[in-house]
Amino acid sequence: MIVVSHRGPISFREQADGSFEQRRGSGGVVSALAPLLARREDAHWIAAAISEDDRTAVAAGESHADEFNLRLLSLDPDAHRAHYDTISNSTFWFLFHGLFDLSRFPRFDRHWRDAWQSYVEVNKAFADAVAETAAGGDVVLIQDLHLMLVAGMLKKARPDLHVSHFTHTPFCGPNSIRVLPDYAAHAVCSSLATCPSGFHAQRWADAFRASSQTVLGAHAAVGNNYAASFGPDPKMLESELAMPEVQAAIHSLEERVGDRALVVRSDRVEPSKNIVRGFYAYDLLLEEHPELRERVVFAALLNPSRDSIPAYQAYRDEVEQAAARVNDRWARDDWQPVLLDTRDDYARSIAGLARSDVLLVNPVRDGLNLVAMEGPLVNDRDGVVCLSRDAGAFDILEQGCLAVNPYDIVQTAAVLHEALEMEPAERASRAAILRDRAASSPPSLWLETQIRHARN
Amino acid sequence: MIVVSHRGPISFREQADGSFEQRRGSGGVVSALAPLLARREDAHWIAAAISEDDRTAVAAGESHADEFNLRLLSLDPDAHRAHYDTISNSTFWFLFHGLFDLSRFPRFDRHWRDAWQSYVEVNKAFADAVAETAAGGDVVLIQDLHLMLVAGMLKKARPDLHVSHFTHTPFCGPNSIRVLPDYAAHAVCSSLATCPSGFHAQRWADAFRASSQTVLGAHAAVGNNYAASFGPDPKMLESELAMPEVQAAIHSLEERVGDRALVVRSDRVEPSKNIVRGFYAYDLLLEEHPELRERVVFAALLNPSRDSIPAYQAYRDEVEQAAARVNDRWARDDWQPVLLDTRDDYARSIAGLARSDVLLVNPVRDGLNLVAMEGPLVNDRDGVVCLSRDAGAFDILEQGCLAVNPYDIVQTAAVLHEALEMEPAERASRAAILRDRAASSPPSLWLETQIRHARN
Repeated sequence: MIVVSHRGPISFREQADGSFEQRRGSGGVVSALAPLLARREDAHWIAAAISEDDRTAVAAGESHADEFNLRLLSLDPDAHRAHYDTISNSTFWFLFHGLFDLSRFPRFDRHWRDAWQSYVEVNKAFADAVAETAAGGDVVLIQDLHLMLVAGMLKKARPDLHVSHFTHTPFCGPNSIRVLPDYAAHAVCSSLATCPSGFHAQRWADAFRASSQTVLGAHAAVGNNYAASFGPDPKMLESELAMPEVQAAIHSLEERVGDRALVVRSDRVEPSKNIVRGFYAYDLLLEEHPELRERVVFAALLNPSRDSIPAYQAYRDEVEQAAARVNDRWARDDWQPVLLDTRDDYARSIAGLARSDVLLVNPVRDGLNLVAMEGPLVNDRDGVVCLSRDAGAFDILEQGCLAVNPYDIVQTAAVLHEALEMEPAERASRAAILRDRAASSPPSLWLETQIRHARN
Repeated sequence: MIVVSHRGPISFREQADGSFEQRRGSGGVVSALAPLLARREDAHWIAAAISEDDRTAVAAGESHADEFNLRLLSLDPDAHRAHYDTISNSTFWFLFHGLFDLSRFPRFDRHWRDAWQSYVEVNKAFADAVAETAAGGDVVLIQDLHLMLVAGMLKKARPDLHVSHFTHTPFCGPNSIRVLPDYAAHAVCSSLATCPSGFHAQRWADAFRASSQTVLGAHAAVGNNYAASFGPDPKMLESELAMPEVQAAIHSLEERVGDRALVVRSDRVEPSKNIVRGFYAYDLLLEEHPELRERVVFAALLNPSRDSIPAYQAYRDEVEQAAARVNDRWARDDWQPVLLDTRDDYARSIAGLARSDVLLVNPVRDGLNLVAMEGPLVNDRDGVVCLSRDAGAFDILEQGCLAVNPYDIVQTAAVLHEALEMEPAERASRAAILRDRAASSPPSLWLETQIRHARN
């Protein structure tokens, strides 16, 4: 078995003595797969050298990983940057999440066309590495939007392999896929159509099918696409919750919040996460329900993200202004209605989920959303989950959560109010459903599903 | 027969002596319908009093129209403003054209919810007026996005009537209709589903069907929706072309352009029209083809539009900056590459279409686009039409035009180059197709189609 992903399970850090320290990488895909592939002789992992130190380690022949059969690809830095920033993050991420302000962006100019060539080159480097590494008939599991052309390239170079591709974001519908230049839309759809193509939710699989039929023709074979997902590993979450730094963060949060009700959100600072509208809804809640003033705190636990992209910097500014607006309007001497924390601090985020009475997860669109599933598993207060119906995780948690229309401030405020006022018995029964559903799809099952589809 | 539209065929202007002058209104819907309904005893027209003078004429009992059985409804000014600005123009127009920058807008706050009540009220006023006016079994033809709830209201109040609704914009797909608050999405879809619902292109009819099934349920009856369209009236265009002010404008344009090739666009300053990307494409054309410099002029003939909406002001600024950027970069003493004309001047627009060698019509989305059909009918130079594939008119003109991907600057520049370099024989054969197709659907046929569907 070969797993192929842009980011690998290990990053390297050069030490003063010239040796390289190995660190476990982060991110949803790596966190799910790394524990399953560690110390498995039959599993290979191919990924990109991300940092300068990764590249140095590869050049020095020191990129051997203790726990993985890992091959890091050292890519041309300019091509890699174009592949990552311009195509993966600024085009496909925006397109699949519906984030483009279409009267202005995208603009497929010559710069973009050149970046597309880099995307093709980087995908080719991955496909070549797989073709070299794979034994006859191997299973190859390609991950995410950085590598959408690899399946098609392998179909030509190594038709003996059992290939599957899994997309971790949403996929867009026919009106949106047509936004791309024809050659790019065709390349993506025709590559993913050569293999079983997996998505976190049925609606993304359906969107891929509809888009492919628009791009490739109504009668084109568009692969045996499927929905399969993974939740958190409950055991791993349990051990994280027990860590001293998490317990300390819970203690610190409790000191700040006291006996007030706590609404929490935990997100990257990312336009798809809909953080600004969350503050507007909370503001409306305080306006409409004076009895809640001083009785509730909204902790927004936000990790920095993609600070090098101007659209992300602009969004971070809007988030900070919206939070400040609520505090300016409602704060009293002994009460700050919004706690905005933008440090990159995982322990604090887990602590927030553990202590929350209400968890707000209101993305405009999300492939899955792991936070919505982690919350119920670390929370022992029967916390209520208010979840956007446009997140893939909604399909899993629907019976236990309260549904949010992410664009509707009035409705979101009403849902927050319903959550804060919910009777203990209903909280308990919903929390039991949420825990059950969130624990029902550990990463091991998801990995098996990919393998089964690849082999079919 | 009763035609129901927001804007009527006549507006009133109070004179110094207290009498009211009647003026023919403008706009695509009115221009198509007014000649067909003038002096028809059997046709009634119900519309809103738009201007202060209209309202005064209604109050004075002086809103009788010489040529029409016209009833103008004098609406509460605040409710009318909310109906028109907040719901019709800032919500439905943006939603159906895919113009929302979804990580920021829309925000359905209390202001919006109140405006929605006004939209319902205004629609109710129209439905009441129809119910009062209509004889048993009358045909009622409701027009456009301002009045999407009227059909459903009439279904209850006057089930004897034969009602049809026609939407002149695009319609959005299932992912987009879900953006609305549930009550609004449900109100729109369930109203339009009570009657035959017409659109300019099959794809908008399909989008309505898919959206309605998402909102109302997969097995809901969603009406006998249909595609039917109208082009310009060739005779009317011919007489307009012969008017002295149009001939003068042609002469004036010829003096400025000389023997250079002329690219023309003629649009309202409207984010859906994609004017900025058009300038970027022209800029790239001049960059890649030095031989075209000084040999081509791009006349952008732009009518002001909805200046009171901030998003439109911002877009106008971007348009002006993009035009200035091209001129700053390429202009020489005796050559200005872009002529930007933002006066509200119909004669100038017709003159531009008549004199153009290439017509660029590249909207990001458009229900139909009449300019693309008017061009071939007033142009005697075998002008090439470069048309966005995302305009409804593309389905009509596909065999004769060159297809533009509105987001792809590189492709748009290549299409402009192909158009400018096209051999005379191909220009002639394409122009013949364009003229034939553009003249094939006069408004009279479209009106008959609506009546036929209403009666079925």
